[in-house]
Amino acid sequence: MESARSTSEAASLKGTGVVAGIAYAPAVWVRPRPDLPEAGRTIAEDAHDSEFGRFTAAADTVAGRLSARAETVEGAAAEVLTATVGMVNDRGWRRGVKKNIGFGHPAEYATVAATQKFIDMFEAAGGVMAERTTDLRDIRDRVIAELRGEEEPGLPDIEGEAVLFADDLSPADTATLDTSHVVGLVTELGGPTSHTAIIARQLNLPCIVAAGKKIRQITAGEVVLVDGARGTVTRNADEASSRAALAEFRERAAVIAQWRGPAQTTDGHRVQLLANVADGNAARLAAEAQVEGVGLYRTELSFLSTSAEPTVEEQAAVYRKVLEAFPDSKVVIRTLDAGSDKPIAYATLSEEENPALGVRGLRLARENEGLMTRQLDAIALAAEGRSEDAPTWVMAPMVATEQEAEWFAGLCRDRGLTPGAMVEVPAAALMSDQLMPHLDFVSIGTNDLTQYTMAADRLSPQLAYLTDPWQPAVLRLVQETCRVGALTSTPVGVCGEAAADPLLACVLTGLGVSSLSAAATAVAGVGAQLAEVDLASCQRAAEEVLGAAGPDEAREVARRVLLS
Amino acid sequence: MESARSTSEAASLKGTGVVAGIAYAPAVWVRPRPDLPEAGRTIAEDAHDSEFGRFTAAADTVAGRLSARAETVEGAAAEVLTATVGMVNDRGWRRGVKKNIGFGHPAEYATVAATQKFIDMFEAAGGVMAERTTDLRDIRDRVIAELRGEEEPGLPDIEGEAVLFADDLSPADTATLDTSHVVGLVTELGGPTSHTAIIARQLNLPCIVAAGKKIRQITAGEVVLVDGARGTVTRNADEASSRAALAEFRERAAVIAQWRGPAQTTDGHRVQLLANVADGNAARLAAEAQVEGVGLYRTELSFLSTSAEPTVEEQAAVYRKVLEAFPDSKVVIRTLDAGSDKPIAYATLSEEENPALGVRGLRLARENEGLMTRQLDAIALAAEGRSEDAPTWVMAPMVATEQEAEWFAGLCRDRGLTPGAMVEVPAAALMSDQLMPHLDFVSIGTNDLTQYTMAADRLSPQLAYLTDPWQPAVLRLVQETCRVGALTSTPVGVCGEAAADPLLACVLTGLGVSSLSAAATAVAGVGAQLAEVDLASCQRAAEEVLGAAGPDEAREVARRVLLS
Repeated sequence: MESARSTSEAASLKGTGVVAGIAYAPAVWVRPRPDLPEAGRTIAEDAHDSEFGRFTAAADTVAGRLSARAETVEGAAAEVLTATVGMVNDRGWRRGVKKNIGFGHPAEYATVAATQKFIDMFEAAGGVMAERTTDLRDIRDRVIAELRGEEEPGLPDIEGEAVLFADDLSPADTATLDTSHVVGLVTELGGPTSHTAIIARQLNLPCIVAAGKKIRQITAGEVVLVDGARGTVTRNADEASSRAALAEFRERAAVIAQWRGPAQTTDGHRVQLLANVADGNAARLAAEAQVEGVGLYRTELSFLSTSAEPTVEEQAAVYRKVLEAFPDSKVVIRTLDAGSDKPIAYATLSEEENPALGVRGLRLARENEGLMTRQLDAIALAAEGRSEDAPTWVMAPMVATEQEAEWFAGLCRDRGLTPGAMVEVPAAALMSDQLMPHLDFVSIGTNDLTQYTMAADRLSPQLAYLTDPWQPAVLRLVQETCRVGALTSTPVGVCGEAAADPLLACVLTGLGVSSLSAAATAVAGVGAQLAEVDLASCQRAAEEVLGAAGPDEAREVARRVLLS
Repeated sequence: MESARSTSEAASLKGTGVVAGIAYAPAVWVRPRPDLPEAGRTIAEDAHDSEFGRFTAAADTVAGRLSARAETVEGAAAEVLTATVGMVNDRGWRRGVKKNIGFGHPAEYATVAATQKFIDMFEAAGGVMAERTTDLRDIRDRVIAELRGEEEPGLPDIEGEAVLFADDLSPADTATLDTSHVVGLVTELGGPTSHTAIIARQLNLPCIVAAGKKIRQITAGEVVLVDGARGTVTRNADEASSRAALAEFRERAAVIAQWRGPAQTTDGHRVQLLANVADGNAARLAAEAQVEGVGLYRTELSFLSTSAEPTVEEQAAVYRKVLEAFPDSKVVIRTLDAGSDKPIAYATLSEEENPALGVRGLRLARENEGLMTRQLDAIALAAEGRSEDAPTWVMAPMVATEQEAEWFAGLCRDRGLTPGAMVEVPAAALMSDQLMPHLDFVSIGTNDLTQYTMAADRLSPQLAYLTDPWQPAVLRLVQETCRVGALTSTPVGVCGEAAADPLLACVLTGLGVSSLSAAATAVAGVGAQLAEVDLASCQRAAEEVLGAAGPDEAREVARRVLLS
């Protein structure tokens, strides 16, 4: 049904843009994976040891090569590579290969079968674990290529600039991307939270994921124009206008690099820009950016691999690390958003048909109230002695009803904490007038709010056309929340992808949102954009966007009002 | 968090009411299941044959007993029992037991292990199949009790009237409930679509499911008051007022039995009452009720076990059976709502993390447009020659955007069909002003709309407190849909549980809904209620309900306005 509308831009392929920016360069394809061997030929028993030796040598070579690469990079990239090396050296996996060789299989097939077992296990576990399977397939393919004496699959050597195309990038590949050569990324698969997207954000590389099979038409060496904001890859683009778009983008990047907070519009309307963080490390990095504090501290991410519930003191020590990174600024702590794609052994249910619609977030406390009260005790303990200028706010995820808001607010106030709620369930936005009287603030989680409002899994690549933060339906719920926020003097913030999009940030400001929380790296782009518009334009853009039929039209009218 | 609010009704336990009505009688518990044997003792090889003989005899006895029961009942009840007998006689299952005995296990454990294999398989299949596992456990327990010479688990013999309590009722138990003795049902587990709920609706037995572990406090013989509309079980209820409530309920039932359509309020405001049907059989039964046509024909239910897509002619033959049952009335056909808990081999994707938020309904046609066009061709073919007084309307499930509405309406109009859309994705309600100009009608699917608006799986018993059709957040979306419907002269109907609740039906009428479609058996209750109120009261009730904080308060204010 898309095709009926896309005839006017026949040269453009559309995916999900995850990092804004322009690239204009020849396409380069990641070297294809080897054809996988099938079971068949068997080897004699007296050759088993030498066959396993052949495997060990190949695996060690691959591990060595990845380790060497890890030394040429820093930070998260190095961590990813080291984790991959760890998988190549994993004893369980190597034992699996040995066992298969013991059944008479050659090393190549033994590797495939042993890896498949792990892939099945990870996929059965679902969620975050399932995303690791790209990594498993990657080491399998590297070892098989090595066993065959073939060229290592993955990143080719690149001369000059290039846009990198792939079905999906492995963590090892994304970790060593050389941004002096690679200027853009386009993948057939993946989603806004895939590894490719995360690394692209970190490297600030224009990036499009979930572009679909149609990108296979693009041949190596063909010059393409990538627009990460629009999510388009254009073939046969006009060279002059492409170069102009590229120049404009680079100029923009320079402006953004110069921007200093706090954020305000040309007419002095202040918008608080905050960072999303997951732990103390991330908080210390974020504190170096132009942010006024933390707008979303996702506490659950510290406990994904914790089997027993940490004590109040242990929890407090974890939370304190984040608070200490911002001794003089606001920090908004979200209580455990466990469940769905973030299972936590000590908190969540094991099997649900639709985990995103399941017992998650605040709902877990219905059967296990201590989970919530102990976390609040720990937050109160961690926040003891904070200065008045550094407020500690606490919000609950998945609040849907007035009763839940009242209950949560009561627990917070008992402990001297400032209570708020995520607005991510559509009911919370629709019932703002009932919820807000109990709360001191709300923060709209646009990712989940979009998922539920559109009834489309945010992790599904096939439904990326629906889970677009520019969906006017979602923005209408933001409007309703802001309307009631203004009536009840309840500050309304936004955390989620929407807050990282400079143009959408202006629209949200026009709707009445007073703080925006996003990845620390995205904040300057938003601040620089706000510095170029006045509040009245933001309000006009908001009004027009609410009347748009869909996300593409919404983007267009916002651009027309705000950028012309 | 519930407890803080329920102190005033300490004697009442709350579950999910699925069939309205009052029962006041002693509690009776379904006889408990046998303790399951564990692997341990083995039997000698020469005893394997006799051991299998022992199993066969027990299984045959159980099958015989169930068959005999099947002869004492009719209709769906008989079908359920016959299906259960089929499972006891299943060759695969019996072969599994034989194999386990061959490994040296006694018949009891061999039965447990063989059944578990099937349970695992069914559960892996998920959805509708997973619900069949209650049946498997039931036959396992009956056979084990028989092998041990114990009393058959399940329904006890009941003297006088009783409210039946159970963890969950097996299909075989529900099928043979004797309503001259059993006057109410309460289960610890289950949900609004569980077997217990379906049979209770068919028998019109006051019924509460998902009442939780707390019902275990209730002892056999203790007199309880069950209120199926409120979902409450009251212990130590005052006898005089309980008897009065019961008498009032019975009086009401007599009024409902007398009611004749078409439905209208005391001041002559007409509301079209329609039936939900799944196939020709259901349609013929529905045609005997006081309905003005079919408001929801769920086409996908005919193809749940069809492996290859039926041809246009084959489909037309299926649809024609429903149309022929209503030769002079409106029939609203919904195109395939495949996916999620209704997988269809030829249409749906196999593995999704959150199928309810996945590629389902209309979305399947995005990659497979022929699936939609062939179905519309078939509907057009089936509707050929229908009289002008018997319009055939067609609506698509899971419409979320203007673009989808436009596309679907175009396909319908090309074939001379009247296009509409389900409003079940929150975005469809929020964007009514953009969708409706393309459509001739809409029908609000309150079950799914509630699921998404509350972000709570409608099949999850733990979340039944959220997926209540009286949630004011959902009713606010109904209001918005009706507001735009009135502006654009687009009729707005409701299909789903909400339309079957007499009081809620009045509220919906007050909001501007012009047709209500529900199970044919529920229609008279709705019609009788509408006949006792005027439109202004419905509107006043609607207004007050929209201001309620939650579903309980909403019910209360509606009762106050409409029933006093």
